[in-house]
Amino acid sequence: MTAGLDYTVIARDGAARLGRIETAHGTIRTPAFMPVGTAATVKAMTPEAVRTTGADIILGNTYHLMLRPGAERVARLGGLHKFMNWPGPILTDSGGYQVMSLAKLRRIEESGVTFQSHLDGSSIALTPERSIEIQHLLDADITMTFDECTPFPATAEVAAQSMRLSMRWARRSREAFVARPGYGLFGIVQGGIYSDLRTESAAALRDIGFDGYAVGGLAVGEGQTLMFQTLDVTVPHLPADRPRYLMGVGKPADIVGAVQRGIDMFDCVLPTRSGRTGQAFTRRGTVNIRNARHAEDGRPLDPDCRCPACTRYGRAYLHHLSKADEILGHMLLTQHNVTYFQDLMAALRQAIEAGELAAFVDAFARAQTAGDIPPID
Amino acid sequence: MTAGLDYTVIARDGAARLGRIETAHGTIRTPAFMPVGTAATVKAMTPEAVRTTGADIILGNTYHLMLRPGAERVARLGGLHKFMNWPGPILTDSGGYQVMSLAKLRRIEESGVTFQSHLDGSSIALTPERSIEIQHLLDADITMTFDECTPFPATAEVAAQSMRLSMRWARRSREAFVARPGYGLFGIVQGGIYSDLRTESAAALRDIGFDGYAVGGLAVGEGQTLMFQTLDVTVPHLPADRPRYLMGVGKPADIVGAVQRGIDMFDCVLPTRSGRTGQAFTRRGTVNIRNARHAEDGRPLDPDCRCPACTRYGRAYLHHLSKADEILGHMLLTQHNVTYFQDLMAALRQAIEAGELAAFVDAFARAQTAGDIPPID
Repeated sequence: MTAGLDYTVIARDGAARLGRIETAHGTIRTPAFMPVGTAATVKAMTPEAVRTTGADIILGNTYHLMLRPGAERVARLGGLHKFMNWPGPILTDSGGYQVMSLAKLRRIEESGVTFQSHLDGSSIALTPERSIEIQHLLDADITMTFDECTPFPATAEVAAQSMRLSMRWARRSREAFVARPGYGLFGIVQGGIYSDLRTESAAALRDIGFDGYAVGGLAVGEGQTLMFQTLDVTVPHLPADRPRYLMGVGKPADIVGAVQRGIDMFDCVLPTRSGRTGQAFTRRGTVNIRNARHAEDGRPLDPDCRCPACTRYGRAYLHHLSKADEILGHMLLTQHNVTYFQDLMAALRQAIEAGELAAFVDAFARAQTAGDIPPID
Repeated sequence: MTAGLDYTVIARDGAARLGRIETAHGTIRTPAFMPVGTAATVKAMTPEAVRTTGADIILGNTYHLMLRPGAERVARLGGLHKFMNWPGPILTDSGGYQVMSLAKLRRIEESGVTFQSHLDGSSIALTPERSIEIQHLLDADITMTFDECTPFPATAEVAAQSMRLSMRWARRSREAFVARPGYGLFGIVQGGIYSDLRTESAAALRDIGFDGYAVGGLAVGEGQTLMFQTLDVTVPHLPADRPRYLMGVGKPADIVGAVQRGIDMFDCVLPTRSGRTGQAFTRRGTVNIRNARHAEDGRPLDPDCRCPACTRYGRAYLHHLSKADEILGHMLLTQHNVTYFQDLMAALRQAIEAGELAAFVDAFARAQTAGDIPPID
């Protein structure tokens, strides 16, 4: 096995690909959805439960982990896989996004970013080199280059400056990365919603050379139309023999549309965060389990779902737990949502393999807009 | 099977008894510890996980369940067992204790109690008849008589008045209870720390006749010495052929001492509540996992424990989760604590069967006071 990640395309259906990525900690079946394990835990789930949903890989957040428990500490304890008892592949983000969204008093310079910890207010510097070092200490199978997440909306000039800074940081990230078999580094295309900037960014990353290519800076408020337009102008400029990752996406319909456009990997807090606020994803669209209509409904949340929340309990119980803010409610709805997302990915993979993606997408869209099952009585 | 509960004493060791209670929903091995499932959930655990710990029976709180989701609603949904997917025995308390500890603007009269809901401030009446009806609607295997929890400290006069009110309510509870095979009603001995009042209360309950006898009004701040003294003067006045239940107890050492004094059943929020605040019960005493000494300790919380928290993770990870207030930390520490309590009960049952309870109690006390494992480095 040579340094980097083996990636194989098994089947194609239009622009969509069925594939496999081989990492030091196992295989990732693509298209793949990565549950977010921010602080070394996919919130409200055991790693065994995460695996049961069908997830091959989870995501860890460099920003959170560097602050608590600390990358050097995780390394001394044997790495993130051992620390959190997740033996499968892990992708870590670079920390750039959370520095923008969570930290205070940021200062961005050519060298990197200085910010205040949202936990204790301490001043912390993050550079491309330090971000890559942290991800190495965590033992991430897939490391992301350090980038600046361009805000939305941004003028073309701002987006260009931001993207070019990220490209210089991408080169420094590549130089800092320690290549090993089964470990890979992904570059991140930036450029906002501007097709010329996206093209320029993709070319810059191809010149450097990465094990995979991510599309960053989307799902930040631009809406599905602009997101898909940006994918349409970006994906053709990414190498066909490398996996493609759409960061921070997203809603089921976003994922389906992005898979049709050739994206192989996704991550989003939506299934886990929604599980803690009573929003459930089902084959008939989203259901707010806290709605009073469910209070005496003993039927399953989603009769076609295999998860414990759907096979062992009725809506009335899930409604009760969620209204009472009981931890078990968060546990069950999170497991349901992650199961739904993994079943969606499995169905997409099956449709690509069978060459029936278009029919699947039609049926998916019809079911999603059909509305929830009618109330009883 | 006749109305009521079959109770068999299998072995004795001093005053301690090994026994079995047969209920409509299965067998309870005694001495038994009942995890508390306040609002139709043992907090942070699935019912399957509760069963895995070895628990035969759980406790539900009438006060919480009558307010949310409501007893009539639970009945319409098929009862508490089906609602929360716990097929085993359930004991419900009568609501009296929570009315005293949680509700506001209480008014106690001969007929019953009027109080304000702690959830929405609505005014609610609870009488012995209504408490028994609620527990019937919930389908409790073991129903508790409605009583007034005498405050501590209380003068002999106050304790006597309170106890005699509870005895009149016990008779009304008995009359309201619908006897069926596999379902039982327990009376509750009151009388504070006054031996003559406890004797009078036990006699009053024996006259009425119950399927089991609880000792109430303890673990309210009187301390272990007064608790054990009160058991010493109370238990001999309880029928030998009926199970005895010490309500709201307690710490492991309290349970061990009470078993030695002839108590068969216990309940307490300690293992579940402590799991959410980072306090762990182990074979070497309690451990505060949030203490900084655990931050880089990869060793198991309790190397002799079979639970997932101890077999799959190190102290450093549990420390991290608890400090970060992650739900998984609550889940793992709760399951550990409930497992510890159930393993303690299993060890007590084994010791009674072998006639080695005294030796077990000696070894237990030595281990509990030995202190936690020494820090590494």
